[in-house]
Amino acid sequence: MTERIYIERHVLQGNKDMAKENSDRLRQHDILTLNFLSSPGAGKTTLLERVIDEMKSKYEIAVIEGDVATTLDSERIAAHGVHAVQINTHGACHLDAKMIAQALDRFDLAAVDLLIIENVGNLVCPAEFDLGEDLRVVMLSTTEGVDKVAKYPVVFQRADAVILNKTDLLPYIQFDVEQFKADVHRLNPDVPIFYVSALNGEGMHDWIEWLTAKVVKA
Amino acid sequence: MTERIYIERHVLQGNKDMAKENSDRLRQHDILTLNFLSSPGAGKTTLLERVIDEMKSKYEIAVIEGDVATTLDSERIAAHGVHAVQINTHGACHLDAKMIAQALDRFDLAAVDLLIIENVGNLVCPAEFDLGEDLRVVMLSTTEGVDKVAKYPVVFQRADAVILNKTDLLPYIQFDVEQFKADVHRLNPDVPIFYVSALNGEGMHDWIEWLTAKVVKA
Repeated sequence: MTERIYIERHVLQGNKDMAKENSDRLRQHDILTLNFLSSPGAGKTTLLERVIDEMKSKYEIAVIEGDVATTLDSERIAAHGVHAVQINTHGACHLDAKMIAQALDRFDLAAVDLLIIENVGNLVCPAEFDLGEDLRVVMLSTTEGVDKVAKYPVVFQRADAVILNKTDLLPYIQFDVEQFKADVHRLNPDVPIFYVSALNGEGMHDWIEWLTAKVVKA
Repeated sequence: MTERIYIERHVLQGNKDMAKENSDRLRQHDILTLNFLSSPGAGKTTLLERVIDEMKSKYEIAVIEGDVATTLDSERIAAHGVHAVQINTHGACHLDAKMIAQALDRFDLAAVDLLIIENVGNLVCPAEFDLGEDLRVVMLSTTEGVDKVAKYPVVFQRADAVILNKTDLLPYIQFDVEQFKADVHRLNPDVPIFYVSALNGEGMHDWIEWLTAKVVKA
């Protein structure tokens, strides 16, 4: 394990430098950039479809989709009338800053207000890799269980916002919302938490309002 | 990325050698070993609790729990009266064969019939790391969405059995069971698929019967 950890540190430093370049480039164009993380199937793409439909009339939105394989998500996003670029990592469990730098070349950055990067579905690896984003948003879905906050602390510690999705399923499952809130705030005391159903739209207003305020400031 | 991939190959070879040692050691004791993989919150631990309650009167069961942090799962498992060892990976997104070798030292292997390794919740990294197991079981839950089979092909390709969990939630969500079955069998034509609700016990009989037959043969 020691060797592996040493290598990771080396890789992480290279990634950090590239992330800084991405960040400089994005800020030059006043783009607010979001790095969106969750487990597979927590509902990132469905939430993103709602964000786009609500915000695209006022803001130019660009999306980078990260997946191990397939272009399913970028096709879903492109169907909502925004420019989406798919990155397939072919086995890697996260996006890195170099992949983002290459994807950025494919957008007209001068026109973009909001860039959303949907990371590979994974609560471990993406937490370590800065992409040059302004905000990191972490989503958990109610069906994954409240214990996931304690089990994956790093990703929650580093979040700028936390979203609990699939609130529509709360009547059918065991999930203690108060414990969730307490566990998140123990790791990250001031982080805002949004409770939503990306499927039926419940709770979307507060989340979109928060995000819009950030775009306006960028 | 090239450098990283090269390193992974090196790490993977070392892991493979250690996995072979684990496998030899486990077979010496006629132990059937299962490597159990899924996303976080798919329901591995809940299913495991049912397996233990059903099988522990006839077979000696040992459990290795892999998590980035916490001993929550090994405590849940130990409460069912079997020996459970927790491995905390402290950031690593999968178990490796060396971690398993160390955990094996803590069991009385001569007495064990069935060893179940619950891997870190992740559909990407654990797929690459052989632990010395006889069988690899991959679980998806209905709430994660049917597209996850195409998005994480490697883990499904290498499965010896696939379990679809949370069938009790099918009435409340969008999940096409026929598409799931077709997608799994496209990647892995002969793999058995079990449809269960670990929460209410639905479908457990067939899965336990399949597993029991494998233990008897070991």
